[in-house]
Amino acid sequence: MAGGKAHPVSPLAPEGLPALPAIAGIELGAIEAGVRYKGRTDLMMMRFAAGTTVAGVFTTSKCASAPVDWCRSILDKGNARALVVNSGNANAFTGKAGAAAAKTVAVAAAKLVGCKADAVFMASTGVIGEVLPAEKVTAALPRLATTLKPERWDEAARAIMTTDTFPKAATRKTEIDGKPVTIVGIAKGSGMIAPDMATMLSFVATDATIPADVLQALLAKATDKSFNSITVDGDTSTSDTLLAFATGKGATHKPVAKLADSHFRNFRAAFEDLLIELAQLVAKDGEGAQKFVTITVTGAQSAKAARTIALSIANSPLVKTAIAGADANWGRIVMAVGKAGEKADRDKITIKMGGRLVAEKGAVHPRHDEAAATEHFKSRDIRIEVDVGIGKGEATVWTCDLTHGYIDINADYRS
Amino acid sequence: MAGGKAHPVSPLAPEGLPALPAIAGIELGAIEAGVRYKGRTDLMMMRFAAGTTVAGVFTTSKCASAPVDWCRSILDKGNARALVVNSGNANAFTGKAGAAAAKTVAVAAAKLVGCKADAVFMASTGVIGEVLPAEKVTAALPRLATTLKPERWDEAARAIMTTDTFPKAATRKTEIDGKPVTIVGIAKGSGMIAPDMATMLSFVATDATIPADVLQALLAKATDKSFNSITVDGDTSTSDTLLAFATGKGATHKPVAKLADSHFRNFRAAFEDLLIELAQLVAKDGEGAQKFVTITVTGAQSAKAARTIALSIANSPLVKTAIAGADANWGRIVMAVGKAGEKADRDKITIKMGGRLVAEKGAVHPRHDEAAATEHFKSRDIRIEVDVGIGKGEATVWTCDLTHGYIDINADYRS
Repeated sequence: MAGGKAHPVSPLAPEGLPALPAIAGIELGAIEAGVRYKGRTDLMMMRFAAGTTVAGVFTTSKCASAPVDWCRSILDKGNARALVVNSGNANAFTGKAGAAAAKTVAVAAAKLVGCKADAVFMASTGVIGEVLPAEKVTAALPRLATTLKPERWDEAARAIMTTDTFPKAATRKTEIDGKPVTIVGIAKGSGMIAPDMATMLSFVATDATIPADVLQALLAKATDKSFNSITVDGDTSTSDTLLAFATGKGATHKPVAKLADSHFRNFRAAFEDLLIELAQLVAKDGEGAQKFVTITVTGAQSAKAARTIALSIANSPLVKTAIAGADANWGRIVMAVGKAGEKADRDKITIKMGGRLVAEKGAVHPRHDEAAATEHFKSRDIRIEVDVGIGKGEATVWTCDLTHGYIDINADYRS
Repeated sequence: MAGGKAHPVSPLAPEGLPALPAIAGIELGAIEAGVRYKGRTDLMMMRFAAGTTVAGVFTTSKCASAPVDWCRSILDKGNARALVVNSGNANAFTGKAGAAAAKTVAVAAAKLVGCKADAVFMASTGVIGEVLPAEKVTAALPRLATTLKPERWDEAARAIMTTDTFPKAATRKTEIDGKPVTIVGIAKGSGMIAPDMATMLSFVATDATIPADVLQALLAKATDKSFNSITVDGDTSTSDTLLAFATGKGATHKPVAKLADSHFRNFRAAFEDLLIELAQLVAKDGEGAQKFVTITVTGAQSAKAARTIALSIANSPLVKTAIAGADANWGRIVMAVGKAGEKADRDKITIKMGGRLVAEKGAVHPRHDEAAATEHFKSRDIRIEVDVGIGKGEATVWTCDLTHGYIDINADYRS
């Protein structure tokens, strides 16, 4: 939002936030701390009941931000009592001063909550290369801590936005061993911290009782099918953070000992489904996005190979601009399959657009209907299916088109 | 050029083609065969003297075109008597019919030249998914074959263009063992075959006497430092083809037995230099290019790691749009280093823009002059240097910015 330019709400945005229920054991809220933005909330805090477990997945960047380093260093304790998230400043590439700023925030939050600093998780998103002004955060935290309430998820979802054009949240009611449990998640997407970088943050919480190691395994698996299966431009933030919290303050249920427990199956499915919904919301708010694109690859050598091929298609500027231009250009899809580096046999590839056969056995299909394919490419919801024809690996990824809006957003002057 | 839209000549184009000398043992020319385009030459042929050696480097795509398959199948013979190149149709993803069309062209050219078909090399660039209309090529070849002359390099460079906005050629005079030798090369670039795909074709010829295996080793090494060190959008064509020919019809020189021969050193340097010039011309004609960007990475774990990091920067849409917007946004460079996957230590990275220190030791440099950096980013010739600080690996790559012009060119309807 540097420069004060507001971008129009994505045409792919849902009509509004769903009703977000309270999670027993969690109180949260947001406040205007003035880290960088004016006139909007930019500091979010969650307080967790004693006994809350935590799991985390972070950016693969070799240049991770100070908050990511902090979270990684305390994750193996498996307990969380607070989460502090600011927007406006990513505290990334800020050296020792940045690490000190992160610690200052953790210590201040711990004091307010009455826990050790190593139970305080955090995330920062915004410009990089500037040390987080920790004093603005620590000055605002006491006021924020006195106003935390269980039902303030909406505010939390808004406070972590940067150039997101809409807030993102999802919820599921499910059960463990017949006892009701609730999950709520919020995310911020790949709107750029104009003009710094895309950062994906997401925080998911449940009132179920889940040991930290099971929660970690659950989160890692579900991430592959959700946040690791979306892409806007192939760029990776220094700050990507996904944290899951389980308070254990809901209905008492049969203990969960491992991910494969049969009575945990429904929860696992609901959790994964929620993460996929959040991930899709992020893709729908990609910079300049006008179309939502689902790419399914089947018949690859392995599931991993299928995802690599699907991401190669999803990240190809040529495929993304063809979609923007409603050009049902299957040649570019062949190109993207070919460059993925995974095993493929040109003469066994099948391509469908909007469910219709376009090409098979290494050539255009004799009944390919280009007009119908073009009509599909004019819609908001593009479906591309590729069968590689050599194995059983499958994967689905989601992305958006590449439009003038992306250039507008990212080629702006920072000032 | 589908749709008939002409794009303005790149502001990075040189003033004109250099004077391109004849190469003893080569006659060439171009003609309008009407493969797809109207009112311009689209078929180019070279005839080589008996004894001409050949080397080739091709696309890494798993979905290579029929002409690429053809060249690969005959390359190990090491001899070339003819080269036939058409624009307008890539003969890619065309199955058995495409392979048959390629062979038809080779047989026809062989008959005209008086050689076997396995001494006829070829390349096709243009729309994919349509079988090459071989009859249009074979109908035009006899006329073309009677008009071949040694000094028609200019016409050849123009005939292989697709959406290139300027023809590309380079030449060097050098020596082997004190005897004069000449090299001429032409290339077509990453203008798209609107709206199919970028294809890089380049043909380089010399009158020196070079065994095929030495020529192949020379070409492979030089490709890494030239065509494998440029990028426009990270997409890989099904048709990329780089061929080198050595006629042995120039001044008699001491035989070349291996790449490391000391009397071959100057030739090797000149050859590499010429390939770099051609590769840079291709980057300067990237779709929508307004700025030429040189990215040098030093201090990486290996030369390969340095190139991976440099290409990660060069392919980042966020870096490329920042350059387009004259936003000296070094945070995006850190991001691209971080996502490259190569060993890096955030706290040892140094970044320069236009020769000035911007960041070092994991943080912005205290005397970073943002105004000066912005001024540099407004120029046509952007220089970014990154020292990773952990090893001795070095690499330089070249690219262009990502502008609205790229979207215009690639989001057009095909019709």
